[in-house]
Amino acid sequence: MTTTYQDNLLDWLRDAHAMEQQAETLLRAQSSRLENYPVLKSRIDQHLEETLGQQRLLEGALTQAGGDTSLLKDLAGKAMALGQGLVGMTMTDEVVKGAMSGYVFENVEIASYTVLIAAAESAGDVRTRGVCEQILKQEVAMAQWLLDHLPELTQAFLARDATPGLTARR
Amino acid sequence: MTTTYQDNLLDWLRDAHAMEQQAETLLRAQSSRLENYPVLKSRIDQHLEETLGQQRLLEGALTQAGGDTSLLKDLAGKAMALGQGLVGMTMTDEVVKGAMSGYVFENVEIASYTVLIAAAESAGDVRTRGVCEQILKQEVAMAQWLLDHLPELTQAFLARDATPGLTARR
Repeated sequence: MTTTYQDNLLDWLRDAHAMEQQAETLLRAQSSRLENYPVLKSRIDQHLEETLGQQRLLEGALTQAGGDTSLLKDLAGKAMALGQGLVGMTMTDEVVKGAMSGYVFENVEIASYTVLIAAAESAGDVRTRGVCEQILKQEVAMAQWLLDHLPELTQAFLARDATPGLTARR
Repeated sequence: MTTTYQDNLLDWLRDAHAMEQQAETLLRAQSSRLENYPVLKSRIDQHLEETLGQQRLLEGALTQAGGDTSLLKDLAGKAMALGQGLVGMTMTDEVVKGAMSGYVFENVEIASYTVLIAAAESAGDVRTRGVCEQILKQEVAMAQWLLDHLPELTQAFLARDATPGLTARR
């Protein structure tokens, strides 16, 4: 049995939409829990807004490519196992693990849009390719920001953790 | 209660060792399943060798930093949830999802060593910092290779998937 370029492209666009719904959940959870790291919280809130815009872009691309968007709600619950376990963390180094997880999730997204761009190219779908390139830029920027800030965040956490009376974990 | 720089550093070094054991499992599983993508298989085998070397480097760093390596075997089973679900995949686009997962796992490692380098710096542990910088370079190279090859791998998969009589998925 063969599968057309278009079938694979539509499948992966639906996966991407489910992924952005999960991203929304993760970003909201992280933002609401952060207390002592305002710079990180503010960047997460900015990316949450971008993520909502990405969901709408993907819905438009799906509709335009002939996909059925009525299935999207069902898929939200099936979101990738890769991002699981990141919400409601209770570990003592929560802020560090949270930023690491955020960086990893951005890279799930970077891989997904890289695949989608190649698939749209194979399917000759210029519009979807453009949408995915636009979203990819935002994911790369967020991933880079998190990686760039991970050392100072780690050291801020360690300094708080070594100081009596200060909460370090979030 | 406060936690010293050294305690956090040792915790994270043990986490890194567990992560490299999981990396070994994932890389072996992926390599053994690939049939039609020899370039990817060969790069995975190369990184498997690097990963075994990294395990030994981390054991040395742990011993030198005063950590107990007898705990390491127990930790292997607790490896990060982020990498779960990647072994023994049965999805029809297995090779694409496998390369994506490999890229994501490399970024789990990149985040971990970035944190460890900052932690080693805070703890004044020059040797551990050097070991982690050395390993980080290999992880960055593997991640970049996978990302660079993801478009052509995707398009090779799609072309096989659209051709009657060819196996595409692995």
